[in-house]
Amino acid sequence: MTDNRDQVDAQIHRWVRPDIVKLTAYPVPDSTGMLKLDAMENPFGWPDDLKSQWQAKLAEARLNRYPHPDSPEVKTGLRNTMKIDSRWEIMLGNGSDELIQLIAMAVAGPDRTVLAPEPSFVMYRMIAQFLGMDYVGVPLTAGFELDLELTLSRIEREQPAVVFLAQPNNPTGNLWGDEKLRRIIEAAPGLVVMDEAYTAFTKADYLDWLEDYPNLLIMRTLSKVGLAGLRLGILIGDPAWIEQINKLRLPYNINNLTQLSARFALDNFAVFEQQSTELIRQRGLLHTALTALPGLTVFPSEANFLLVRTEPGRAADIHSALKEAGILIKKLDGVHPLLTDCLRITVSFDEENQRLLTALAPLLKLA
Amino acid sequence: MTDNRDQVDAQIHRWVRPDIVKLTAYPVPDSTGMLKLDAMENPFGWPDDLKSQWQAKLAEARLNRYPHPDSPEVKTGLRNTMKIDSRWEIMLGNGSDELIQLIAMAVAGPDRTVLAPEPSFVMYRMIAQFLGMDYVGVPLTAGFELDLELTLSRIEREQPAVVFLAQPNNPTGNLWGDEKLRRIIEAAPGLVVMDEAYTAFTKADYLDWLEDYPNLLIMRTLSKVGLAGLRLGILIGDPAWIEQINKLRLPYNINNLTQLSARFALDNFAVFEQQSTELIRQRGLLHTALTALPGLTVFPSEANFLLVRTEPGRAADIHSALKEAGILIKKLDGVHPLLTDCLRITVSFDEENQRLLTALAPLLKLA
Repeated sequence: MTDNRDQVDAQIHRWVRPDIVKLTAYPVPDSTGMLKLDAMENPFGWPDDLKSQWQAKLAEARLNRYPHPDSPEVKTGLRNTMKIDSRWEIMLGNGSDELIQLIAMAVAGPDRTVLAPEPSFVMYRMIAQFLGMDYVGVPLTAGFELDLELTLSRIEREQPAVVFLAQPNNPTGNLWGDEKLRRIIEAAPGLVVMDEAYTAFTKADYLDWLEDYPNLLIMRTLSKVGLAGLRLGILIGDPAWIEQINKLRLPYNINNLTQLSARFALDNFAVFEQQSTELIRQRGLLHTALTALPGLTVFPSEANFLLVRTEPGRAADIHSALKEAGILIKKLDGVHPLLTDCLRITVSFDEENQRLLTALAPLLKLA
Repeated sequence: MTDNRDQVDAQIHRWVRPDIVKLTAYPVPDSTGMLKLDAMENPFGWPDDLKSQWQAKLAEARLNRYPHPDSPEVKTGLRNTMKIDSRWEIMLGNGSDELIQLIAMAVAGPDRTVLAPEPSFVMYRMIAQFLGMDYVGVPLTAGFELDLELTLSRIEREQPAVVFLAQPNNPTGNLWGDEKLRRIIEAAPGLVVMDEAYTAFTKADYLDWLEDYPNLLIMRTLSKVGLAGLRLGILIGDPAWIEQINKLRLPYNINNLTQLSARFALDNFAVFEQQSTELIRQRGLLHTALTALPGLTVFPSEANFLLVRTEPGRAADIHSALKEAGILIKKLDGVHPLLTDCLRITVSFDEENQRLLTALAPLLKLA
């Protein structure tokens, strides 16, 4: 076995890309039994009657058959729910992650660059790296606003094949403003993907901008509105763009159960919209409560999470102490220079938010 | 809109990879209302009692939560069912398709080549192409046997980073023999992936070969045994290899419903094994019946399909006529020079096989 081990290692170093060998896998912390406030999940389970109806609906599932390759039922549900005009095409991914990967693959090449403001969704950088593409992160301002001049100059210099703009932005929670966004889209020589993962929690909506810009695509997901377990990412745009990217999609990427369940959920979407509305209300309450605590800066948010900054050097301790108390939030300190001392808290329903506040308050007094 | 259309087209031609623009999407024929004998699906639905238990089990699904990133329950079920030794690691994909993609990505590069005997599973070629890798197909003999000398010389010349060996091979249905396979694995400088998608229908089993070869990985799937709708591909191998490839896996690629359903199915796997056994029996009967028809060469098969060759120039007509009769089989004529006049028929249960035979017989008499 020792010989075999050496042989395997030698093979790996000969054949696996050196940038992959150096990489560590995306860490997902063990959350068994924890209060999960780390992943922007909708905390509400499905109402019992809805769950029963859904279980009955699954009798239709033909598990022995390949899924429909184009998920037409899901697309119809999305068109109805999201008011997507018939002139735009829809393409579905196994989560937005897969869509980001396919978009990048479509324009990949040795001289091709992906650009995004930073900090933003980490998958833009990771997926560019997986595909061996250059990645350019353009720092936001210290207040997490888009630095328009800097971004425009980097776009001019780097000529990115794709620009990813998350609105509201994760992990900062804010919007960058229509004027700046328009300037970026107009200056970008290639594709611009507006990632509206958190669209359920804001009045901002850029779907109509597809009319204005031939280089724009809109990306959404059902993950933040109560369907994270399904993994359904949504890409919307001009049929000619979608046609190209769709060629790279593996033919049966959305399974039977996801198709049935997503269509069912979309036919009952009012339930999830009400849950999102309640989370917006809770966001306001939690923002006020966190702001009232000592030693915490709370940033404004248009998403279902709040970015907070602790006193210098306290983020790691507070994160650990909460974890010991059974509460999982996201430590962003160390992830990006602009996020020093930052933590991200997913907004939940009242009881869970209170549990967080109760655990958090004494930790801040220790400072 | 005309202006916009021109702008979109100009953008696409500037940015989308030229090889992708030239590509056509993987065609999946509309099969609504058809007898599906084209896709190697298990034709048996789930028994009613099993389906009811499964529906009840889904009450556990927490659709609002992200799936477990590592699917530990599914892996335990697979270890038990497939007798996978604890020294091997398992990695799951959204179908084998995704695993092929991740394996290729791990070793991708401008001078990196994927090699496979041809004809074989089309995704090896397509995915290499999607990733901009070179692909070398080494023709089988006219009788669909592995051409050992030719394959060894191509391996020597091309130094492929990955060799894919499907056993039993799709679409030819046969095994190439242990001696030849060992010679290939020993000669390959990089990874060899043995794709055992059809392992349920043959006594051949190469899992133990992992002990012998540090460059071997085994790929399986639940698609052919009755779970095509779930999309679950399985990669088995040395933990050091799996660790590298797993870094490229998007973290939540196997959704909650797939994890729950796969575990449930694996805990009740005897049902699916019985179905596979029945299909092996039906394969023998169908082989005999097809051989008895005039103008048809039927090849031996260790899988759940039969490859047949019609009289010269008849494959397209027969395929169309069956389609008009509501029966969908796979036309392979035109896909590869070695498959001229060939059709592929998925083995089903007796009633469906009889329906095929009844529709097929008069078409052959027309010759």
